[in-house]
Amino acid sequence: MLHDQLARDLYTEICRLPLIDPHTHIDPRRPTARNLDDILGYHYYTELAHSAGMDKEVLTSESDPRERVRAIMYHMARFDNTAQYEWFMEIIRAFLGFEGERVTLADCTWLCDRAEHIMAQPDWEDQILRRSNLEHVFLTSDFDDPLTGFNTGRYVPCLRTDDLVFHLDKPEVLKRLEKATQLDDVKDLRALREALRKLFDHFTRHGAKACAISLPPEFSPEPVSPADMAKDRKAFSRGVFWMLAETCRDFDLPFDLMIGVNRRVYEHGVHQGQDLFDQQTSLIQYAKLFNAFPEVTFCVSVLSSGQNQELASYSWIFPNVVTHGHWWYSNIPAYIEPDLRARLQAVPKTKQLGYYSDAYKLEFVLPKFNMYRRTLAQILADDFIRPRAASEVQAVELARLLLRDNARRIFNV
Amino acid sequence: MLHDQLARDLYTEICRLPLIDPHTHIDPRRPTARNLDDILGYHYYTELAHSAGMDKEVLTSESDPRERVRAIMYHMARFDNTAQYEWFMEIIRAFLGFEGERVTLADCTWLCDRAEHIMAQPDWEDQILRRSNLEHVFLTSDFDDPLTGFNTGRYVPCLRTDDLVFHLDKPEVLKRLEKATQLDDVKDLRALREALRKLFDHFTRHGAKACAISLPPEFSPEPVSPADMAKDRKAFSRGVFWMLAETCRDFDLPFDLMIGVNRRVYEHGVHQGQDLFDQQTSLIQYAKLFNAFPEVTFCVSVLSSGQNQELASYSWIFPNVVTHGHWWYSNIPAYIEPDLRARLQAVPKTKQLGYYSDAYKLEFVLPKFNMYRRTLAQILADDFIRPRAASEVQAVELARLLLRDNARRIFNV
Amino acid sequence: MLHDQLARDLYTEICRLPLIDPHTHIDPRRPTARNLDDILGYHYYTELAHSAGMDKEVLTSESDPRERVRAIMYHMARFDNTAQYEWFMEIIRAFLGFEGERVTLADCTWLCDRAEHIMAQPDWEDQILRRSNLEHVFLTSDFDDPLTGFNTGRYVPCLRTDDLVFHLDKPEVLKRLEKATQLDDVKDLRALREALRKLFDHFTRHGAKACAISLPPEFSPEPVSPADMAKDRKAFSRGVFWMLAETCRDFDLPFDLMIGVNRRVYEHGVHQGQDLFDQQTSLIQYAKLFNAFPEVTFCVSVLSSGQNQELASYSWIFPNVVTHGHWWYSNIPAYIEPDLRARLQAVPKTKQLGYYSDAYKLEFVLPKFNMYRRTLAQILADDFIRPRAASEVQAVELARLLLRDNARRIFNV
Repeated sequence: MLHDQLARDLYTEICRLPLIDPHTHIDPRRPTARNLDDILGYHYYTELAHSAGMDKEVLTSESDPRERVRAIMYHMARFDNTAQYEWFMEIIRAFLGFEGERVTLADCTWLCDRAEHIMAQPDWEDQILRRSNLEHVFLTSDFDDPLTGFNTGRYVPCLRTDDLVFHLDKPEVLKRLEKATQLDDVKDLRALREALRKLFDHFTRHGAKACAISLPPEFSPEPVSPADMAKDRKAFSRGVFWMLAETCRDFDLPFDLMIGVNRRVYEHGVHQGQDLFDQQTSLIQYAKLFNAFPEVTFCVSVLSSGQNQELASYSWIFPNVVTHGHWWYSNIPAYIEPDLRARLQAVPKTKQLGYYSDAYKLEFVLPKFNMYRRTLAQILADDFIRPRAASEVQAVELARLLLRDNARRIFNV
Repeated sequence: MLHDQLARDLYTEICRLPLIDPHTHIDPRRPTARNLDDILGYHYYTELAHSAGMDKEVLTSESDPRERVRAIMYHMARFDNTAQYEWFMEIIRAFLGFEGERVTLADCTWLCDRAEHIMAQPDWEDQILRRSNLEHVFLTSDFDDPLTGFNTGRYVPCLRTDDLVFHLDKPEVLKRLEKATQLDDVKDLRALREALRKLFDHFTRHGAKACAISLPPEFSPEPVSPADMAKDRKAFSRGVFWMLAETCRDFDLPFDLMIGVNRRVYEHGVHQGQDLFDQQTSLIQYAKLFNAFPEVTFCVSVLSSGQNQELASYSWIFPNVVTHGHWWYSNIPAYIEPDLRARLQAVPKTKQLGYYSDAYKLEFVLPKFNMYRRTLAQILADDFIRPRAASEVQAVELARLLLRDNARRIFNV
Repeated sequence: MLHDQLARDLYTEICRLPLIDPHTHIDPRRPTARNLDDILGYHYYTELAHSAGMDKEVLTSESDPRERVRAIMYHMARFDNTAQYEWFMEIIRAFLGFEGERVTLADCTWLCDRAEHIMAQPDWEDQILRRSNLEHVFLTSDFDDPLTGFNTGRYVPCLRTDDLVFHLDKPEVLKRLEKATQLDDVKDLRALREALRKLFDHFTRHGAKACAISLPPEFSPEPVSPADMAKDRKAFSRGVFWMLAETCRDFDLPFDLMIGVNRRVYEHGVHQGQDLFDQQTSLIQYAKLFNAFPEVTFCVSVLSSGQNQELASYSWIFPNVVTHGHWWYSNIPAYIEPDLRARLQAVPKTKQLGYYSDAYKLEFVLPKFNMYRRTLAQILADDFIRPRAASEVQAVELARLLLRDNARRIFNV
């Protein structure tokens, strides 16, 4: 809760703005949690519980879901200082009616029962969307997702391309591509290019609004000759990536770049809790790309707060680079605050996509956006309204750009 | 405007201190703007407008200046959240008498007329200097500048050496050097050394107080043998740089190092709006230099806020390293604040050159210094006066060192 | 002094918590200062005075100690803005009864006399420990320290291993090792491993609670084959380091890693005032180590605030990585504040060792911990109590974990 009255008033106003959530991992065919296990199974909780001493065994599918919830809540007492704990408190308060100051193991059964009861309501998805004030939810769609069986107006497909760039040498990935594109034999670059166009055609016909990829810290895109692509795996990845950028240009799709993640750093970590970053990276690695594709809007997320100044500066200079959210290890108020202040002072306001939830279940959209909105409200109060650089109405209009209107314009939704 | 009364009072006091601006790009023969086009032609506005969607065409010299102003002001509505917009507001309020809360395209004609009228006053330069409380303005002088035709007491020449270090392989640069030094044939290192001495002699006789250079992130100075200098371009640059440091030592001139800029990163950017940085750099690259020249004071600017801790630590340890201003992409309150706090807590107060405007026209000195002074006043209030680490008088004395007295002593003005 | 009443109340409560200081350079056989020279001889003062213009000559052992004190206090007027000056003020106020607002050269004789008088009291050590509320003081013990002649319950030995990893190629170090382990000829890896086990056995029998080392920014541990260890010096260092980690595992000792220091960067600096860092480093270099030794707790200190996000994220993910204090160039409020905020929001509270003094004399424990406690109190007030994320009692309990209970559990004291 915000302590400062002006910031609190602003926060209330900002919460009234309808949201576009431009990056999530929601499964549109099962967008909500069905029980507390679906909530606490989020990797933020399993990895913190494991880091604080919980054995991974309880996370296997053979374990009893209630035992798993108990184990995580038991260890939660060791990380009840974290931002992630606050998200959980906000979820159980807002959606389950929990009224205590802190949550303990003693609340476990009540919470589990309550969650199962409430989340089983037939209109639960609509309730959540309405109470979260959510207009559009962007997905992270596998390239071979048929994109049917859900409302693509509400759940906006985005073509996730990590597999294509980094794993096309795996026979099963190639097979998936051949199946998805109904091409017999994707053997050479000409065929690959045709396959990519088929994917983009399929996606855009089904309402896709972005192409997206996450990239390791040392990745440095550049055009690669067919001969070089044939030679080594890294050159091949760079080459496919460049082809994707060309296809984004041809299909007029923004390209979401999530820069900086090293996969499987903690080898024995929980599922999705094994990745970390290397602060030694630079957007200079992307200068060639940004120069080569002036027609493509690159929505860039960086993983370390240290790199935020580069991101703000690149957005300030390059017309086709926009700032995108506060990602993963930078998604805590201690980093959102300085990163957002810098963007608000340095980047044209029309070039900032404020926030995305990165959520796997709709229940997380509200608490994560609230965390962001509180930080935003405080900055607007301190840096804009109090120094008389903006009125309250102007500050809320600025928030509307960050939370909705820029996403509408940039992604054309 | 500062909201905190104590900080506001301090700010008022600090604004009374006469200023030395130890780094600008002012043309001493035409130091002020003549119209709004001269103000909005500053690369901060052209690059933000371009980044926010403005076509570069309007910036060519064939365009009508008023049309250019209109185009930039039209796009300004997209970046009226930025620190740069605040500078503009402060200029039109302080110098043109603008009284509105926001500026819009509707104000364009009035502002243009008003600017032309006011800036045409014969004593405009004196008015600006007086109202900005400016004692000395340091220049960035080309090595072949005759340094005549202006008051070198007010406008202090500084020998800019980028061309010598990085472009002496270009025939036109070599020719300029030969002409400036009246040496027939600067062909070998002995001749080059003589040429440098002639330049330093010319500059110091005309009141120059510093040698200055901007350097790319990967630059790593070290002494280079003549044989190695002959071999490759980068070694040659390092060798010339080392000779400059030797000449600074011999002529007792401080050496301003502006570390971290990559030139022409955004190839299609506006004039002076193409450069960016690479956070992957370290002052460890300068350890040899700082060790080799204990007699030379190095006034160091860094381009990324992330590198500020290195700068503060190097100044804390090396007697000949002083902190210099808040440069370019770090020159917004969101970065000035943490960077300045760290310097004030870690670096001897006599070794900090607080701020420089980097301005091309005198009109920018006031708003840029005001931005710095507001940040400084708030930090002095919060970190020094409120915790009773200093009285208000002592805090203002500290500000005087940062804004004037250290520059007087270090540059010997 | 804290200006905010809530933070001040919290600070008072936090100061009541008994302390464990998990990293110092205290000499347990002479733990306190005997005079002002022992206080101002701390490298923080000699290096700042030298950086601000003091000649190093006065620091040689031939100089008169009072002259040395006068020289440092004379130059202190040039760094009375720094955190280090505040430590000194707090020492002379708390322990010497100084009552002035500022200290000047005019106070020198009085302070010197007073210090000699007060520090000569036979129970001075006990007084300091009691007034500093200190339970346990961790040492940095040379590997050949006999560990006798002091109370190892109060002064907890820690095996410092820099010499073993980086200097075993020096004959005198090898001789010290042979003498300490009573092994005739430590010639091969088998003998070295036996020597290490003997050291660990000696240390743990004398109450040692940790193994510790400081590491340069480019260090990247990995297992090394005996053949490779024989080949080059750097591989040898990596190999010995890996053997130390294995021995930590076998003896169940935590391993303190102090990551990022470059030695002798300023070649002509004062004693202990020559080291700096290189921000270009990453914890990714330690991923192999953290994966290979899940049974070893690594207590990690980083030297640059920029690397704090990596540290917080690694502690968030790796069960065997804990955050350790605020080291050296990051040990000023301007860096403690953002670094601590991030840790409190992202790392399980049981995995944070809040602070260590790094002191050479007991007198420094109080002012350094006070600096930390003030910052901690303000963050607890702003980020936990005011937003109603914790009660005051819970906030103090969190502080107790950081200042005492985590150290007790992790180091098993």
